[in-house]
Amino acid sequence: MSREQRAKIDAMLRQPRPEGPRSVEEIRAGFRALMAGMAIPEGIRVTATTLGDRPAVRVEPAADGTAGTILYFHGGGFVYGSPDTAMSLTGSLVVRSGYTAFSVDYRLAPEHPFPAAVDDCLNAYRALLDGGADPAAIAFAGDSAGGGLCVSTCLAARDAGLPLPAAIVAFSPGLDQTRTGESMETKAEADPLLSREGMAHTGAMYLAGQDPRHPLLSPAVFADLTGFPPLLLQVGTNEMILDDSTRLAARAREAGVDVILDVVADVPHVFQSFTGVLDEADQALDRAAFFLSQHVRS
Amino acid sequence: MSREQRAKIDAMLRQPRPEGPRSVEEIRAGFRALMAGMAIPEGIRVTATTLGDRPAVRVEPAADGTAGTILYFHGGGFVYGSPDTAMSLTGSLVVRSGYTAFSVDYRLAPEHPFPAAVDDCLNAYRALLDGGADPAAIAFAGDSAGGGLCVSTCLAARDAGLPLPAAIVAFSPGLDQTRTGESMETKAEADPLLSREGMAHTGAMYLAGQDPRHPLLSPAVFADLTGFPPLLLQVGTNEMILDDSTRLAARAREAGVDVILDVVADVPHVFQSFTGVLDEADQALDRAAFFLSQHVRS
Repeated sequence: MSREQRAKIDAMLRQPRPEGPRSVEEIRAGFRALMAGMAIPEGIRVTATTLGDRPAVRVEPAADGTAGTILYFHGGGFVYGSPDTAMSLTGSLVVRSGYTAFSVDYRLAPEHPFPAAVDDCLNAYRALLDGGADPAAIAFAGDSAGGGLCVSTCLAARDAGLPLPAAIVAFSPGLDQTRTGESMETKAEADPLLSREGMAHTGAMYLAGQDPRHPLLSPAVFADLTGFPPLLLQVGTNEMILDDSTRLAARAREAGVDVILDVVADVPHVFQSFTGVLDEADQALDRAAFFLSQHVRS
Repeated sequence: MSREQRAKIDAMLRQPRPEGPRSVEEIRAGFRALMAGMAIPEGIRVTATTLGDRPAVRVEPAADGTAGTILYFHGGGFVYGSPDTAMSLTGSLVVRSGYTAFSVDYRLAPEHPFPAAVDDCLNAYRALLDGGADPAAIAFAGDSAGGGLCVSTCLAARDAGLPLPAAIVAFSPGLDQTRTGESMETKAEADPLLSREGMAHTGAMYLAGQDPRHPLLSPAVFADLTGFPPLLLQVGTNEMILDDSTRLAARAREAGVDVILDVVADVPHVFQSFTGVLDEADQALDRAAFFLSQHVRS
């Protein structure tokens, strides 16, 4: 990235880290403030809806859409965030693909620990299918914890005997509640957003005492991905959870699953949020849309 | 892939493995026969030329080209193959990108062992630069041994102080003459094309007694990729040299290089050659052209 781009990003990140040891309400408000700085693309229409008993947001092209559905899962460590805080990412995929997205307002910890989020996302998917949607025309997409939910929801769908979506796009997914990736140490200094303390703080809320060694909590370490649709994992090298993606990619290869591990140098967690500021963000979103166009029936 | 596609590919591969313990002339003729079955796209113009003292083939769109140059290195274990045997791949990239390709007829072993091939490829690149080409408008591309030459030539160019190309696209690259990847064992049964014996046979010709533990011979194990341009590595899961790519991708991440590791399930070595037969081939070539469009100045 250019020096000017780096300066802009540094300024945007100069507020307290969202996962610091603060109250849940402080964490949620801090994240809302951070994400309010991200550009939301023009040319989308946003409406409130429900999907499987949960609130959801429908995001569609204001004109000239294409058949195809994105089921989007927002980030926020399973504790914070909402469809609103991910609107930059969801909208960016919608304008690039022409598809309609449904962004799920799944239940959050600590009020609702694991497996509430997975249950809500699976129910949202089931609602799409029950409504007559063709699974070959559906992709899961998500960022951070929501990238993890893409994988966990697909595992849950497979194990429930549901037809699987056509593709998964995960931006900097969180895929390991055991926090055993090498990058947890090697990238601790380079990561401007995440910290081991912050992840332990929110992770404990999501686990609520449950064993993190569960495939739906730590798929990068414990999941068998047999039967999965093509996966696109995009991740920056300045991320403590870089190796969540590298390990999931290895498991996908072992399971005979198409997997693109798309690593961008010297950018932070969910760098795609910096659309309009960071060239790497827009290029990565373009690649994600191209990937969707290859796999989603439209 | 569909059952029909698999049957077609199996029929095409039913001849002797190209690297069997046969004479050099038998190996070369067998590979020519195998590759003569691959579709060469329409809409290209092919002319003979020279580049840095070596014969080369210029492949350009018959109409409506785009500024941008691909320096292509064909496959063939450093012992066989030519720009002709790779014309399906080179032409496929040209028609998809609109760029002009130069495919280098580098010297082959056993007549010319390492480092003759790297020298020839570096000289070809130097000739492009000396001719006034903008390195930001040049990509290296290659398959199998030629994918390895993309990386080795870029290492040699960097160490010679030359400006580097804008991007590298490597199809099933051979990146390890030490043959120490786990996939050498785990994929031995699944690989319909390569064998340890065949690789040892041609590898010995290329090495000619030299130590394989050299970064230009085994970059996946020994190269420092610092300063490299963005890399796209495409590889199938039915390949003994799958882990040449996975290990190079890890080294690229460590060096702070953009790297896309694009793994396609259940397809063989250089599956992109099966354009027109195998959906995965055409989709992978489309992704390669999209990647080039993001990085090559045109």
